Amino acid sequence: MGKNIFFEQKGPFFLDELFTASLLKKKIKIFDIRNLQQATNRDLTFFDHINYISLAKSTKAAYCITTARLKDYLPKTCVPILVKNVIFELCRVTRQFYPNADIDSPDLTLKNSKKIKISKVKFGNNVLIGKKSKIGKNSIIGSNTIIEHDVIIGDNCTIGSQVVLRNSLIGNNVVIQDGCKIGLKGFGFIPLKEKNLRFPHIGKVVIKDNAEIGANCTIDRGSMDDTVIGKNTFLDNQVHVAHNIKIGNNCMIAGQVGFAGSTVIGDNVSIGGQAGVSGHLNIGNNVKIGGGSGVVKDIKDGTVVMGYPAVVLKEFIRNSKK
Amino acid sequence: MGKNIFFEQKGPFFLDELFTASLLKKKIKIFDIRNLQQATNRDLTFFDHINYISLAKSTKAAYCITTARLKDYLPKTCVPILVKNVIFELCRVTRQFYPNADIDSPDLTLKNSKKIKISKVKFGNNVLIGKKSKIGKNSIIGSNTIIEHDVIIGDNCTIGSQVVLRNSLIGNNVVIQDGCKIGLKGFGFIPLKEKNLRFPHIGKVVIKDNAEIGANCTIDRGSMDDTVIGKNTFLDNQVHVAHNIKIGNNCMIAGQVGFAGSTVIGDNVSIGGQAGVSGHLNIGNNVKIGGGSGVVKDIKDGTVVMGYPAVVLKEFIRNSKK
Amino acid sequence: MGKNIFFEQKGPFFLDELFTASLLKKKIKIFDIRNLQQATNRDLTFFDHINYISLAKSTKAAYCITTARLKDYLPKTCVPILVKNVIFELCRVTRQFYPNADIDSPDLTLKNSKKIKISKVKFGNNVLIGKKSKIGKNSIIGSNTIIEHDVIIGDNCTIGSQVVLRNSLIGNNVVIQDGCKIGLKGFGFIPLKEKNLRFPHIGKVVIKDNAEIGANCTIDRGSMDDTVIGKNTFLDNQVHVAHNIKIGNNCMIAGQVGFAGSTVIGDNVSIGGQAGVSGHLNIGNNVKIGGGSGVVKDIKDGTVVMGYPAVVLKEFIRNSKK
Repeated sequence: MGKNIFFEQKGPFFLDELFTASLLKKKIKIFDIRNLQQATNRDLTFFDHINYISLAKSTKAAYCITTARLKDYLPKTCVPILVKNVIFELCRVTRQFYPNADIDSPDLTLKNSKKIKISKVKFGNNVLIGKKSKIGKNSIIGSNTIIEHDVIIGDNCTIGSQVVLRNSLIGNNVVIQDGCKIGLKGFGFIPLKEKNLRFPHIGKVVIKDNAEIGANCTIDRGSMDDTVIGKNTFLDNQVHVAHNIKIGNNCMIAGQVGFAGSTVIGDNVSIGGQAGVSGHLNIGNNVKIGGGSGVVKDIKDGTVVMGYPAVVLKEFIRNSKK
Repeated sequence: MGKNIFFEQKGPFFLDELFTASLLKKKIKIFDIRNLQQATNRDLTFFDHINYISLAKSTKAAYCITTARLKDYLPKTCVPILVKNVIFELCRVTRQFYPNADIDSPDLTLKNSKKIKISKVKFGNNVLIGKKSKIGKNSIIGSNTIIEHDVIIGDNCTIGSQVVLRNSLIGNNVVIQDGCKIGLKGFGFIPLKEKNLRFPHIGKVVIKDNAEIGANCTIDRGSMDDTVIGKNTFLDNQVHVAHNIKIGNNCMIAGQVGFAGSTVIGDNVSIGGQAGVSGHLNIGNNVKIGGGSGVVKDIKDGTVVMGYPAVVLKEFIRNSKK
Repeated sequence: MGKNIFFEQKGPFFLDELFTASLLKKKIKIFDIRNLQQATNRDLTFFDHINYISLAKSTKAAYCITTARLKDYLPKTCVPILVKNVIFELCRVTRQFYPNADIDSPDLTLKNSKKIKISKVKFGNNVLIGKKSKIGKNSIIGSNTIIEHDVIIGDNCTIGSQVVLRNSLIGNNVVIQDGCKIGLKGFGFIPLKEKNLRFPHIGKVVIKDNAEIGANCTIDRGSMDDTVIGKNTFLDNQVHVAHNIKIGNNCMIAGQVGFAGSTVIGDNVSIGGQAGVSGHLNIGNNVKIGGGSGVVKDIKDGTVVMGYPAVVLKEFIRNSKK
């Protein structure tokens, strides 16, 4: 894991600059805050849910924000920092490292594509490109599209008109249709009476080779992780993909489907129009989800489900006949 | 209530210019047509549904379009004008006062933000601003965004890229993400065989302090009233808010939720993704509506509902287990 | 049927250039590939589903890609070309005739409306117009809107801001609100492991007189046929209309409704918010579909349905009371 290319990063901080009330008042330098998997032995991480035990056990982080109940799953190399509300402390500390990742301030470094040199790329009119963005050869970018700073687009991509791309890495041969808004912050915040505390979103959107995104889709970037659209996965129009979602390869996602945050979708999954998938679920490989379904539980490989709440197809048909 | 700042207003009209077939052929001047609450003693109002009895009883309007069945609820100061179809007559008269509020003609007064003087505001490229728009200090407006005439935006707001704002008043510290279309006319018309008669939309959209609107949302302005998003209320991506909806403070509205017209939502309400709320309902404070639900009835304070049609959670779980 | 004005067409091809493995190695010239109804005696057509028997019986096509099971329904004037997978062969051959209809490459011929002469039309700022587009008198086009090559717009139309129109024929008095993306290719492809094979979309979108399309709608063009929105039909915001859908006259389609491909909707149909209609269905005239419903079967004239799956209203109410 290199440096976060999209967000200004502060630090390193001494541990007692991050946790003033802590017993850990040592002059230990913390270089970054990262998830269990990505943290190095110079970083702080967090562990807030039993779902992530296997990642916790193998984390390389030096310190971990967690609870008394979960702390014993961490390896000996990782010092627990016990708190009552992991998410609140995580939010607070992440905002310290990344002060500008909680609101999507529009990129003011944009320049008209006619004023910058990008060779072997075709541009429509009024395409706006941010600093350090890269676009691969034989790609074509439609009119009025905005590609913010540091975005990387591969070769042979077709990006439609009136698209916004931020904080994203786009593979080769990717098609993104008109009106998509990709890489914005997700819907994550701690509700507070007068002014909600926004969770920083320091992840990005990764769209892999040969994927296609239909018109007017929204794909939010990850908070402490990335949002990923797999190879050769096609999304129809008006699909909403929330933060941290990971969709596998060769999936077919029909129109107006919505994903709540942090769910993992396997390979070869097909999802019918207007279906909704709740957050923090695991959907296996080769799963088929009927149109209009509401998925609220994990689904095993190869299962066909339908309904609201979604059940295996046979059961849905039986219930419909009652 | 001052003058309607967004729409050209004709009049005053004499009563017999508005109701030619009426028995009320007096040379009475009518200055405006407004709802029960907003009308003054120089105005005409309308009363079409038993739901609005308490507003009817206290209206200050001089005249009221209503039916024989409802007329006795009006105060003595208000003269009923009896008709068969209140909505049709209301539509007809409102079109006479406001001839340009039924179709959203694009604003042709727009100028590039570089050509006008607005201090202490940061603009992206190609931001277009209409006449008499005001933007507060420390606000930032993303590229290709359109802010039509007379729109007012408060301080410290972040307006994304490719947004359209019309007929709207935006508070302080408001975030509006990319691609939102706010303040357009709602889906209101009288179906006629050859050419539907569009209902004028003379209301506006009011978004209060600290609110956040996700990407590609649509918020229609009110017809005879305003559409309101409360303080510190957050909407996720692709939410659709129809005309006259009033959402309270501190609400959380997840992705792809849809509201039909004229419903009132209390404070501290949370609504899961893809839920739909029918028109003309009252949803109390502290209500939780599960994702994918279809709400077709009023909901009392503090209730948790789920399902289609939505029922209290306990009942939903019981039904799912059958 | 004249020439396809929107897509570059190759050919004519000899039959053995199209079907190399075929027994039909004759030097017969094939001028176009068209659906059963549109094909002339110089064209190739296809017949893949028992639903289309009546069209098959009266086709004028010279040749038809079909299966052993269906071939006997064709008239004697039409020579069947027997294949295992009609859709795959159709896709392959259509790509040969129309090599650029499978990906929506942005139009690079666009010019600012200020640089071209179109009289009696009002334009906002930065309107981009493609080659050979025509816009009728008294129409108005909002800022940042893109009208690609060969699009035809009638008289007295109001096209909002940040709209994209491609491959479309728009009638008179049509209203299209901000942010709509109309005429893009549909969600049609043959799933293949490494790289899906996109189905060419050589049809267009036809929007008839007096229709209205709400904000941020997406209407995909047809694949081998057109997508049609009937006269005086109104769509609310965020509606998704997939390829080949035909909606009749005087329909009311509320917000966030979604249509899967190739369904035919009659006249005077009203559909409540967030309802979904599956593909390849026939919905009769004067049908009412309740909000949030999921329609998976044909519906006869005059029926009122509701639910998921949608059933006649009486049954839905009975089931809800259980």
